[in-house]
Amino acid sequence: MGMKEDVRSMKLAAPDMASSPEAVRNAALAAIAEKLEQEKDRIFAANRADLEAAETAGVAQSVQKRLRFDTHKLEDVKSGIAQLIRLPDPLGKVTLARELADGLSLYRTTCPIGVIGVIFEARPDAMVQISTLCIKSGNCAVLKGGKETANTNRVLFEIIRDAAVQAGLPEKCLLQAELHAEIDELLSCDREVDLLIPRGSNAFVRYIMDHTKIPVMGHADGICHIYVDEVYDAVEELRILVDAKTQYPAACNAVETILVKRDLAADFLPQLAAAMQQAGVKVNATKEVCDLVPEAQMGLLADDDFSREYLDLAVSVKLVEDVKEAVGHINYYGSHHTDSILTKDEAHAALFMQMVDSAGVYQNCSTRFADGFRYGFGAEVGISTGKIHARGPVGLEGLVTYKYKLFGHGDIVGDFASGNRSFTHKDL
Amino acid sequence: MGMKEDVRSMKLAAPDMASSPEAVRNAALAAIAEKLEQEKDRIFAANRADLEAAETAGVAQSVQKRLRFDTHKLEDVKSGIAQLIRLPDPLGKVTLARELADGLSLYRTTCPIGVIGVIFEARPDAMVQISTLCIKSGNCAVLKGGKETANTNRVLFEIIRDAAVQAGLPEKCLLQAELHAEIDELLSCDREVDLLIPRGSNAFVRYIMDHTKIPVMGHADGICHIYVDEVYDAVEELRILVDAKTQYPAACNAVETILVKRDLAADFLPQLAAAMQQAGVKVNATKEVCDLVPEAQMGLLADDDFSREYLDLAVSVKLVEDVKEAVGHINYYGSHHTDSILTKDEAHAALFMQMVDSAGVYQNCSTRFADGFRYGFGAEVGISTGKIHARGPVGLEGLVTYKYKLFGHGDIVGDFASGNRSFTHKDL
Repeated sequence: MGMKEDVRSMKLAAPDMASSPEAVRNAALAAIAEKLEQEKDRIFAANRADLEAAETAGVAQSVQKRLRFDTHKLEDVKSGIAQLIRLPDPLGKVTLARELADGLSLYRTTCPIGVIGVIFEARPDAMVQISTLCIKSGNCAVLKGGKETANTNRVLFEIIRDAAVQAGLPEKCLLQAELHAEIDELLSCDREVDLLIPRGSNAFVRYIMDHTKIPVMGHADGICHIYVDEVYDAVEELRILVDAKTQYPAACNAVETILVKRDLAADFLPQLAAAMQQAGVKVNATKEVCDLVPEAQMGLLADDDFSREYLDLAVSVKLVEDVKEAVGHINYYGSHHTDSILTKDEAHAALFMQMVDSAGVYQNCSTRFADGFRYGFGAEVGISTGKIHARGPVGLEGLVTYKYKLFGHGDIVGDFASGNRSFTHKDL
Repeated sequence: MGMKEDVRSMKLAAPDMASSPEAVRNAALAAIAEKLEQEKDRIFAANRADLEAAETAGVAQSVQKRLRFDTHKLEDVKSGIAQLIRLPDPLGKVTLARELADGLSLYRTTCPIGVIGVIFEARPDAMVQISTLCIKSGNCAVLKGGKETANTNRVLFEIIRDAAVQAGLPEKCLLQAELHAEIDELLSCDREVDLLIPRGSNAFVRYIMDHTKIPVMGHADGICHIYVDEVYDAVEELRILVDAKTQYPAACNAVETILVKRDLAADFLPQLAAAMQQAGVKVNATKEVCDLVPEAQMGLLADDDFSREYLDLAVSVKLVEDVKEAVGHINYYGSHHTDSILTKDEAHAALFMQMVDSAGVYQNCSTRFADGFRYGFGAEVGISTGKIHARGPVGLEGLVTYKYKLFGHGDIVGDFASGNRSFTHKDL
């Protein structure tokens, strides 16, 4: 069976998945955790094969680390599943209840999105996290993981799917895609797939967006900023800046550009340069900044060269006049991900947080907090820099939509148009 | 200035619009209502010019009625504005408040989407409704109305924009597009425009979706169904069916297909045929249905000919075995708009409402209730058949998104990674 036929039968299973009781979905999650433990030797063996292939192919050590699935990772995903089971059911929540007229009641109720396609990087724990989030939220899912962990993914998927189906979920609730060609086939299934969540490089996410009519949720860039509005405590502020850059430079929520208020520059820039040098971070800056601290040997940036995502130990620095100019820079060059202001001036902070057009706006802390786990969402399927539907780290809430249920007793619109009856619009 | 430059300066104004106080937005709405009243003679004169041009061009009387803007319509839009002023501010609502760790607090707060482009049919009241909804929700808006009301729209837009700006909203908060060519230019502004809401024909909405990278909210088809599961009261049920078809046949929420449970057919079909004939509705049906009521002279439909939206006094009829088959038909042929079940069997109704994959699922009432005004939303910018972001009639809530605000005291992720600190995740 090709991807299209597979996805079509998944679409037919989606209403059964949508109406599956919470108890069955939670039982499936518990069964998955149990079976992962039981079959851990098989998983580890498959993972060793992937790691050996990566070693042979000369994959970088830092990347190899992400491919690994060991006892430690197993414990992580099991505790993630346990947390997911404890979270309240995201389905069937009534978010609006209103009497439209005597005997005519409207309820807005959360329900699954339907069929979701997730394309993710080579990280075996992502396979477990994403599939279990989709199960908890009553969605059918097509999962395509990175090819570097193909062996691990195959075993994990088989365990997860079998446990879910044995627990009573529909046979077609989960589907695995393994070939890159299947992605293009998936992109054409706009009648069957309700949402695509691509994770990966900027170029990859753009490719997906440009080649499908299916709504896409995700982020293409992570160009995050920190604006130093006031030096209220240089030690604390430098610590935030260094953490935001170095704690995990390859992450989308690492800072790429530091904006410093011009009248702080003379005192603060030398300290910033020293702190970054000590942390092994290369600083690139405008001519104005370079001239102020010539001894720091910064790289020179053009005034409009602020669209780059380093994903590495490098950072851009620029001076701005005030919070308004900082906001303008961030809204123009940023990627609407996460931006932070360092200040004790509450009026400046409020202005910054209201006017910066990003999913996350922070005061006096590191941009690295933008993460579903840190926000307490249990896990995330991704981080959205779009503004439509879900924004920021996307957990269970971003995987549901709603429908309006209207209960009547023979009500017709004609009676209201003629004036025989009128709307009451009382919230219930 | 071209559309692109206009939209760019609107983007720069969006943060000011987003941070405008509720009092200013409400004052702008009040000023608009007042100025519409003051300038009504100018509006009516412009509208007469549009109506005369329509008459000369031989536009159908039913369409001409929609172009009219008279005292009655003025009162309608003024009362709509008064209702909008009374509605609570959709901005700044805190939908999540959580202590992530000691001294680190996360708030999810509603905020405007930013810049919205609305392309709507030739109905002058739509210009007022849409612009005032955008103002209340703090969004900047590009408005393009149907060319048949160009004169009326020009006057209305000028009045609305001037009143809004005089009340203190940004100069660039509203923009009017008048030429069809400007639509294509607007579609290319994916860096500036955050959301497009096209209203109009199926072909038009599809064209928009296929020619832009901007997220599109709207509906392409309105193929609504009513499934007769039980004849609990034939008179009431026929009244619902006739209302759903005839109360306004050109509306997207009019019923297009009636599904009847097979074991009710012998008794119910003759009554249905008679009721539809009396209401002037042409019935097209499968061979099975035609054979059961040969005297009704129904049109013959192929078994798979159920994707048509009549927008006219015609309806399709088909028999199904049970609620499961009805759900299957609706999910396959429907447009995920609004579907109703007629039954007193609560188990069947619950199954139908859970499994039908539509924005509105109704029991024992007409599909024509799917409307922002009838739902008590004040007004609507459109009806969404998408599942991402907003679904069903879209009022103020569909015009806002949210951002995460995080307030810290020097917090860095490194302290949590090293185990120095841990997350508390307490809801505030």
